[in-house]
Amino acid sequence: MSEDLGITVKRDKDMSEWYQQVVLKAEFADYSSVKGSIVIRYWGQAIWEAIHDFWDPIMKSHGVKNHYFPLLIPEGLLKKEAKHFEGFTPEVAWVTMAGKNQLEERLAVRPTSETIMYEMFSKWIKSHRDLPFRANQWCNILRWETKMTKPFLRGREFLWHEAHTVHKDKKGADEETKWAIDGYARIAEELLAMPVIRGRKTDSDKFAGADYTYAIEALMPDGKALQMGTSHMLGQNFSKPYDVKFVGVDEKWHHAWQTSWGFSTRAIGGLILAHGDNKGAIIPPSVAPVQVVIVPIIFKKTDEDVLSKCKEVEIRLQNSGIRVELDDRDEYTAGWKFNHWEVRGVPLRLEIGPRDIKEKKAVLVRRDSGEKSEVSDMYVEQAVQEGLAEIQAELFSRGKKNLEENTVVTESLEDLKKAIKGKKWARVPHCGEEACENALAEKVEGGPRVIPFEQEAVHNNKCINCDKKAAYWVYWGRSY
Amino acid sequence: MSEDLGITVKRDKDMSEWYQQVVLKAEFADYSSVKGSIVIRYWGQAIWEAIHDFWDPIMKSHGVKNHYFPLLIPEGLLKKEAKHFEGFTPEVAWVTMAGKNQLEERLAVRPTSETIMYEMFSKWIKSHRDLPFRANQWCNILRWETKMTKPFLRGREFLWHEAHTVHKDKKGADEETKWAIDGYARIAEELLAMPVIRGRKTDSDKFAGADYTYAIEALMPDGKALQMGTSHMLGQNFSKPYDVKFVGVDEKWHHAWQTSWGFSTRAIGGLILAHGDNKGAIIPPSVAPVQVVIVPIIFKKTDEDVLSKCKEVEIRLQNSGIRVELDDRDEYTAGWKFNHWEVRGVPLRLEIGPRDIKEKKAVLVRRDSGEKSEVSDMYVEQAVQEGLAEIQAELFSRGKKNLEENTVVTESLEDLKKAIKGKKWARVPHCGEEACENALAEKVEGGPRVIPFEQEAVHNNKCINCDKKAAYWVYWGRSY
Repeated sequence: MSEDLGITVKRDKDMSEWYQQVVLKAEFADYSSVKGSIVIRYWGQAIWEAIHDFWDPIMKSHGVKNHYFPLLIPEGLLKKEAKHFEGFTPEVAWVTMAGKNQLEERLAVRPTSETIMYEMFSKWIKSHRDLPFRANQWCNILRWETKMTKPFLRGREFLWHEAHTVHKDKKGADEETKWAIDGYARIAEELLAMPVIRGRKTDSDKFAGADYTYAIEALMPDGKALQMGTSHMLGQNFSKPYDVKFVGVDEKWHHAWQTSWGFSTRAIGGLILAHGDNKGAIIPPSVAPVQVVIVPIIFKKTDEDVLSKCKEVEIRLQNSGIRVELDDRDEYTAGWKFNHWEVRGVPLRLEIGPRDIKEKKAVLVRRDSGEKSEVSDMYVEQAVQEGLAEIQAELFSRGKKNLEENTVVTESLEDLKKAIKGKKWARVPHCGEEACENALAEKVEGGPRVIPFEQEAVHNNKCINCDKKAAYWVYWGRSY
Repeated sequence: MSEDLGITVKRDKDMSEWYQQVVLKAEFADYSSVKGSIVIRYWGQAIWEAIHDFWDPIMKSHGVKNHYFPLLIPEGLLKKEAKHFEGFTPEVAWVTMAGKNQLEERLAVRPTSETIMYEMFSKWIKSHRDLPFRANQWCNILRWETKMTKPFLRGREFLWHEAHTVHKDKKGADEETKWAIDGYARIAEELLAMPVIRGRKTDSDKFAGADYTYAIEALMPDGKALQMGTSHMLGQNFSKPYDVKFVGVDEKWHHAWQTSWGFSTRAIGGLILAHGDNKGAIIPPSVAPVQVVIVPIIFKKTDEDVLSKCKEVEIRLQNSGIRVELDDRDEYTAGWKFNHWEVRGVPLRLEIGPRDIKEKKAVLVRRDSGEKSEVSDMYVEQAVQEGLAEIQAELFSRGKKNLEENTVVTESLEDLKKAIKGKKWARVPHCGEEACENALAEKVEGGPRVIPFEQEAVHNNKCINCDKKAAYWVYWGRSY
């Protein structure tokens, strides 16, 4: 395989360069002439569609209804919640002209849609009978990153879904915030085969305008954490300035309780980082655009039997609901095709040659382990289905192992430093005070990632940085 | 029913006011504080999703692959094809600032994506083996309308899909342009129950930068035409400035031939206009978010049997793949609910009361005709399925009748004028010259809508406006 097509750097040597090569060469995405914005190519977009197709029906059966809200938000509207505006305004792209005319008020390209949605909610919601109310949109988002961008992981434009819910009391909103983060953990674990830690962000890291933020965090093989989805309890912070209120059973007006939660194309980058190897990507079967590729092994131009057998098997696999592609291009060798599909991370390869036909079998090759096995022609569908299930499970268990092996639990500052240097993260006791958190960040690289829902008792522990009593255990580490 | 919820104007009296009331009261959409932009509410968005779910797999089996391209297009890139830039620049919204910084080059919010896509195609396409190449995206579009906006029909932001294809010769691109418009006619006729005329736009009306544009046009009940989808043969007009070329079998470089085609949320407006009546919307069963609503008829609080029977029927209908909603809200009367769902255009209503349970039946009411029938409990699923199919067919045949009755075929200028005054459109012979077309537009309201693919012979006809020989028959009329 030419250097041009294969991955030329080892993943452990330079993960950043490796990642970039995989994204480009496997055609997940490409750079555009718009600085900081990528083009999501078919191979990446198909994964996003798989996430949509998994999650959209779950949301719908939970009572979420899809809407579409305007892209542009008048500055005056964005300003109504002060902390929110302050948090987002450095990243906002502004439309100031239309045609040849200067606009009277500049319009923000949505960095998130709380403000434009809640103005409408305020019109639509009147009674406790309208609650809970749940609206969602699948859309594009612009945030003018000034840091180094990285395809999928950090860019000026991304795709996401954002759901916004309204409840009559705190309890309803609290439960919703939790429901959403549990759902995101299902996307990560069941669909993307990425084990995650669920928990709460420390106050310094919560969403601008939220009471608290829940997040799921995955640990990448280079020891950096990746935040994959967030769910915000907004309390009444928006319902007051945006006037989202309802008449309760008591016939009085009340300000509503709200949540918002989102999951973005960032997950595609996470998936590539988490599962890939030196040969390229490995895509979990559940979301792989192609789950199995059939490569005909042809020696002579006259081996027509091979092609017709391959076509037969393709149709049989399609009929079993498997996403299959037959690579019957005649301009490439079988070896070239093996590499082509390995870089792209297709979970299974099925090779069929003249000898296989004679012996009524095929050769099945796993992308994750390279393991080859002979399967009887009669049971190809079953073998492929089993292979896909095994790879899905294996990727998750590799992730689990990575997480376990690279998590240090310690109360010692020295051990924390050692962990970070050793490309791990650590679970440490902390007093929960922001000043102390900042002081710790001066001493140790990284920052607080997430306060896990699952907590050991901390009543006997002191904060890792100060003498105070610990308030919680928190994951500390570097991040994407 | 209170005036607030029902439609208070007759459709024939003031279609514009009627339309606005239906859009708002049936909750298809709402006005936002962003002038000229609407919020698409659940009831409208669900129709857009139904269109997506019908059309996306058809495109995919045709070889189209979904991508996502950046929202913002640098001015310099947009400018490369002069006619295209000239055509779109009056409607472009410009991003000129990000955070606190003035941008060096202003960025257009995409009014369409030819330019940003073709820059990438130029990188990706190298050989005749890469062709045909077909990329699509589902996305939002901004065009700064200065005319009066109307929800769905004309607005500053809309959703659409845009497919862009690349071919090695003119023949391939010609065929693709035709394939797409035929597909759009299927969406309109099979899914939305709207008969359309397929044809070519006159040169004055074609897409900025195209060799020719195909369109489907539907005739609304007020005699105005609605353009519902367009397919553009771009020739080599873009492949030259954007450098989309390939090495042919002859081992030489050739500029490619291209097409682009799009279908937008405008169709939702068309559907409302086409099928509604004085009571509100009538949604074709194929795209109705709710196909049948069950309304329990409860006289006493103790009629619990009724509710449990309704729930049983709801589940049975769900299991038959029918989109059903049980309206079991206890704060509203049955009559209120009838109106509520009639305004929204739900095709079928199923009423179940205590007497129905005793007699093992239910009452089925059609939204299109108001017709009531008793159906045996045993055959509810079948009756609903048949009812839905009949309504779908009936709506299409009403549309067909509207089209036939309101199309005048004439060679006389006076008859054309009369037709337009009488809220019809006309098929007339024309010489095909732009100056003559403009002269005709001075004399008769409206303009050329579409040159139908199906043409009668014109060798004996003179142009309706000048003495020259007619080149084709063209539909002439007012439009949305």
